[in-house]
Amino acid sequence: MKAARVHGYDDHKLHLDEVPEPTIRSPYDVIIRIGGAGVCRTDLHVLEGMWDFTSPGLPFIVGHENAGWVHEVGSAVTSVEVGDTVIAHSFVTCGLCRPCRRGDDAHCERAYNPGLSADGGFAELMRTGERALLKVDPSLRPRDIAALTDAGLTAYHAVRRAARWLEPGHRAVVIGAGGLGLIGVQVLRALTPAEVIVVEPREESRALAAEVGAHHTVAADGTQVQQVLDLTDGHGAEVVLDFVGEFGTPADGVAMARRAGALFIVGYGGSLEVSTLTMITKELSIIGNAAGTYDDLADLATLTAQGAVRLHTTEYPLEAVNDALHDLEQGRIQGRAVLVPS
Amino acid sequence: MKAARVHGYDDHKLHLDEVPEPTIRSPYDVIIRIGGAGVCRTDLHVLEGMWDFTSPGLPFIVGHENAGWVHEVGSAVTSVEVGDTVIAHSFVTCGLCRPCRRGDDAHCERAYNPGLSADGGFAELMRTGERALLKVDPSLRPRDIAALTDAGLTAYHAVRRAARWLEPGHRAVVIGAGGLGLIGVQVLRALTPAEVIVVEPREESRALAAEVGAHHTVAADGTQVQQVLDLTDGHGAEVVLDFVGEFGTPADGVAMARRAGALFIVGYGGSLEVSTLTMITKELSIIGNAAGTYDDLADLATLTAQGAVRLHTTEYPLEAVNDALHDLEQGRIQGRAVLVPS
Amino acid sequence: MKAARVHGYDDHKLHLDEVPEPTIRSPYDVIIRIGGAGVCRTDLHVLEGMWDFTSPGLPFIVGHENAGWVHEVGSAVTSVEVGDTVIAHSFVTCGLCRPCRRGDDAHCERAYNPGLSADGGFAELMRTGERALLKVDPSLRPRDIAALTDAGLTAYHAVRRAARWLEPGHRAVVIGAGGLGLIGVQVLRALTPAEVIVVEPREESRALAAEVGAHHTVAADGTQVQQVLDLTDGHGAEVVLDFVGEFGTPADGVAMARRAGALFIVGYGGSLEVSTLTMITKELSIIGNAAGTYDDLADLATLTAQGAVRLHTTEYPLEAVNDALHDLEQGRIQGRAVLVPS
Amino acid sequence: MKAARVHGYDDHKLHLDEVPEPTIRSPYDVIIRIGGAGVCRTDLHVLEGMWDFTSPGLPFIVGHENAGWVHEVGSAVTSVEVGDTVIAHSFVTCGLCRPCRRGDDAHCERAYNPGLSADGGFAELMRTGERALLKVDPSLRPRDIAALTDAGLTAYHAVRRAARWLEPGHRAVVIGAGGLGLIGVQVLRALTPAEVIVVEPREESRALAAEVGAHHTVAADGTQVQQVLDLTDGHGAEVVLDFVGEFGTPADGVAMARRAGALFIVGYGGSLEVSTLTMITKELSIIGNAAGTYDDLADLATLTAQGAVRLHTTEYPLEAVNDALHDLEQGRIQGRAVLVPS
Repeated sequence: MKAARVHGYDDHKLHLDEVPEPTIRSPYDVIIRIGGAGVCRTDLHVLEGMWDFTSPGLPFIVGHENAGWVHEVGSAVTSVEVGDTVIAHSFVTCGLCRPCRRGDDAHCERAYNPGLSADGGFAELMRTGERALLKVDPSLRPRDIAALTDAGLTAYHAVRRAARWLEPGHRAVVIGAGGLGLIGVQVLRALTPAEVIVVEPREESRALAAEVGAHHTVAADGTQVQQVLDLTDGHGAEVVLDFVGEFGTPADGVAMARRAGALFIVGYGGSLEVSTLTMITKELSIIGNAAGTYDDLADLATLTAQGAVRLHTTEYPLEAVNDALHDLEQGRIQGRAVLVPS
Repeated sequence: MKAARVHGYDDHKLHLDEVPEPTIRSPYDVIIRIGGAGVCRTDLHVLEGMWDFTSPGLPFIVGHENAGWVHEVGSAVTSVEVGDTVIAHSFVTCGLCRPCRRGDDAHCERAYNPGLSADGGFAELMRTGERALLKVDPSLRPRDIAALTDAGLTAYHAVRRAARWLEPGHRAVVIGAGGLGLIGVQVLRALTPAEVIVVEPREESRALAAEVGAHHTVAADGTQVQQVLDLTDGHGAEVVLDFVGEFGTPADGVAMARRAGALFIVGYGGSLEVSTLTMITKELSIIGNAAGTYDDLADLATLTAQGAVRLHTTEYPLEAVNDALHDLEQGRIQGRAVLVPS
Repeated sequence: MKAARVHGYDDHKLHLDEVPEPTIRSPYDVIIRIGGAGVCRTDLHVLEGMWDFTSPGLPFIVGHENAGWVHEVGSAVTSVEVGDTVIAHSFVTCGLCRPCRRGDDAHCERAYNPGLSADGGFAELMRTGERALLKVDPSLRPRDIAALTDAGLTAYHAVRRAARWLEPGHRAVVIGAGGLGLIGVQVLRALTPAEVIVVEPREESRALAAEVGAHHTVAADGTQVQQVLDLTDGHGAEVVLDFVGEFGTPADGVAMARRAGALFIVGYGGSLEVSTLTMITKELSIIGNAAGTYDDLADLATLTAQGAVRLHTTEYPLEAVNDALHDLEQGRIQGRAVLVPS
Repeated sequence: MKAARVHGYDDHKLHLDEVPEPTIRSPYDVIIRIGGAGVCRTDLHVLEGMWDFTSPGLPFIVGHENAGWVHEVGSAVTSVEVGDTVIAHSFVTCGLCRPCRRGDDAHCERAYNPGLSADGGFAELMRTGERALLKVDPSLRPRDIAALTDAGLTAYHAVRRAARWLEPGHRAVVIGAGGLGLIGVQVLRALTPAEVIVVEPREESRALAAEVGAHHTVAADGTQVQQVLDLTDGHGAEVVLDFVGEFGTPADGVAMARRAGALFIVGYGGSLEVSTLTMITKELSIIGNAAGTYDDLADLATLTAQGAVRLHTTEYPLEAVNDALHDLEQGRIQGRAVLVPS
């Protein structure tokens, strides 16, 4: 079959190779036929070698945001069958460790990640595990929903945790109206009564944020902290969600958060520095957020089916994977790029 | 009456002055006769001018950790009467703002603080407000319980919040076995099933920590992070409480916390620096802690009455206030110094 | 001034009397000029003598759902001033007992209730306390918002507590689309992602429920339990809110609740009977709901100001109070009857 | 092998039969060699036919409280191996349904129960599933810990849920100091700062309750409600745990609960009847409790390993199963009867 693989960390592109089809190796394995595979900034980082510590060895197939149809199942598989339309959570979890038992499978102690620590979804077929698969309505097209499982899931997870802080009259600031932030705005509107303020440098992204439900948008032009304070009676917001995590946004987040408020870190790349005196006098909570759980994915799929959340995607044929990566790097993609095998 | 006042930020000592007795000025005011007033590191910082931003103007009486007997009450006071034995919360709150209404009076929008923003308790009498007063059993001596209201309360508040993270088999690390840390250990034992690990440089303080309930003590000798990891199967602890907040303890706390764990910042002075990548991959929560609420103070007083928490104090006559401050600065006080008017 | 008083429990009507104006008696007292006073089924019960156990002695002025303008304030009052537009919570709380301190002032140990245990608001002026008053925008008319403080508050309180059980894909059943139920539907939509199912016998009330946000309406015609099961894949709903509390609705609620679900009891009059085997095999939670807190009232006022909740009221002049009571008894009032002094 | 089976619902005893050994049938199956099997009041109910609705067909082997050693594993089993010492949760869950995914596997939609809906543990070998097995230290004897998995687990689960209601100074009433109640007392002491009051008719059981940690014991002699009110300043307890659930205890529980308190129903057999007016004016929560989750079992095993909980058991050889059932019926067993295959 055709697959896009990383061969080395110097050549800055994926290679379209003809490779053997994956096969069932354990009783829980499932092979899915890929219908759509999202392209993520993390794929760029894989190409740069940043994730080499967890790689299965070169060359391997990238792509960790996948949806498709069940193609073959292992002998112990009971919850999906050949032909089912499925979204694949990016973790294949064990179901048996303590975190899995507690419903916190995003911290599974034995998980592996197709596209990062095993062959992924920039291909025609992919091996994953039964526990990663969420069966969805067969009328849905995998290419339209693949982006739920990484961009969507991460945003949902953070907002779901933030929701318990948000009561009527409260404000939530969303820093960054990219793929994750736009979903974050929609989930905030669906789960909470909070007023949503979006901070974003690009004008067209602010317009899109307003369209999907932001009550206020603020240009990230150097005055963004003051603008947020002005919109919050000078006190700051009960919740700040930082979907950027670099270029100074964590410091902005600390400054925008109200006394006794919470800053949720979702994006990464930069650093957070804050005095312990500020932590204490403000009684601030700073909360890191990883990927969501399987349960989060199912909840997000429900919200999407109900129309409360919608994704913005741009399709590329699998063969054009390097174009997609290039466009992503240049900031030329609105929403999420999704590869579709021909 | 006699009172210890700060006259200026250059003379490094308090002045024992003869001053007029405080009088009732608003319907909710209460004058208490001081039975004991705790001496806190913050008093040293007041003398250094660090709290000038909130001072009522020089000279003024310091002392924010007070207990005594009700001496006189304002016209609207209904919950205490002359002669009652009381502990004074260090905040005089309004009871009417939204935080007070929610039970979160530590974030009262109109509070004042005797000893910091008004005359305090290093004196024979002090003016405070009805809402600050917790009536206790008349058999208790104010000098024995004054330390509950700042050292004790802050420790209780942080542990009470941490308790919800702690289930059987979990570990809680306490960094710093000083006045607050020792109370923290006892409250952890009273409220949670967690195994308690204390990190502390001084040997005698580690011994005291073990005596009041720590399961393990670790010398803070440069290997403390590794020692904690060794005691926690290499994973780190579900909860870390940093009662120091400077000299590198926040970085230690991040390293000692387990994936999906929480670091509670209680001490202050230093800075916290952490990459957003660590926040996310570890899914760490970092939680600042201010003073406790009135409700926290009442709960802590209950635990103390039940014998679950005991305080360690050293008494000084009010006239020896500068000796007490000096001994504190030199690290020569075990537990808490308490001034007692003659 | 003019006031409607209950003189005895046999004459089935209130008496319009000329009575002295109320005066300030304690430093916290506030006299408000009534702008609107809601008429409640509880007023009918007062006339029947059901609340005699708490009455201040006959005759007295009823009316516990009041809004108006501040007319006079006691010497210790700081948070409102003459002329302010206010909604009056039906409890005048102490602010000093443990429940008040915790933010749970609906369980204040020293509260009194104008209209039940003291003179109420079917009059031109009413004495209440500072702590009961929520200041609102002066552009609001008291007659339009009086119903927030009993009907609205009770519904809000129950839904706010239920909201933590409701995630995407969950269902909430509202039994009874009267004054409270209609507000309940709107608050469910504002605070939760749940699908809302309303069970109600009257066709026009079902239509109104659908108009304010119910996803499904079910006729309470004897098949209502089966209809709810049909709408919930045979499993029942995660949350059932019973705004009726008699005529068999509690048993319906138990049958409509899903395994591990919750039944919130809001209405009263009847009895709940359930086998302990059902409680256990279903792992059902049955949760009684009293009036809301001051904080709930402020949150509800915020939702109303944001347009997320609107009230349906019918005005009567104060002199027509017995007409209003009669119409209420006959089920002829849509929404809430509100008395307006001329 | 030897096994005790129910042949019919008229003969009031189990039959000791020679039956074929169980075999692996699915990839997740595990055969365990029974080291100890607890005898439960539910086994008496099975003999009476009360559980026929879920039975696998007659005759079948009862016994749902089992511990032993792994004897054989299916092809997909990864978390236990032959020879491991294990406790068997009484539910074999799927791990894939939404409740399992959320960590709430006690509500698994596809679970089966050895001893109730499949052959159980009154035998030399038993078939169960990997997901039911908790690996414990090999130094433990299965006969000593078998009772953790039904009596212990149910008590732990209820107390763990109750713990969040219990703060310093609060009181928890335990109705019934039988096998479950005694564990409940110990778990309350381990997880909460509450004062524990035990209500129990038998004097020797009250003595045992005091020995394992109850602060007060109350004779259930008709005055028990008044005695509890006397011990709680006339207000009742914040939490009441009813481990009996019949003979009037639910009504007692309602009367013993404080305003805004919670009644946890654990025992079953009787009925709960309460007016909706009481539910509302008291703002009472009544919470049904089923078996605990796998996670609860692991937590309880940890507490037991730490010495915070200990079990009281009486051993019988498997052949004496009918003696054990008889003694249980006659109330002659202190703690739990455990069958041990010879």
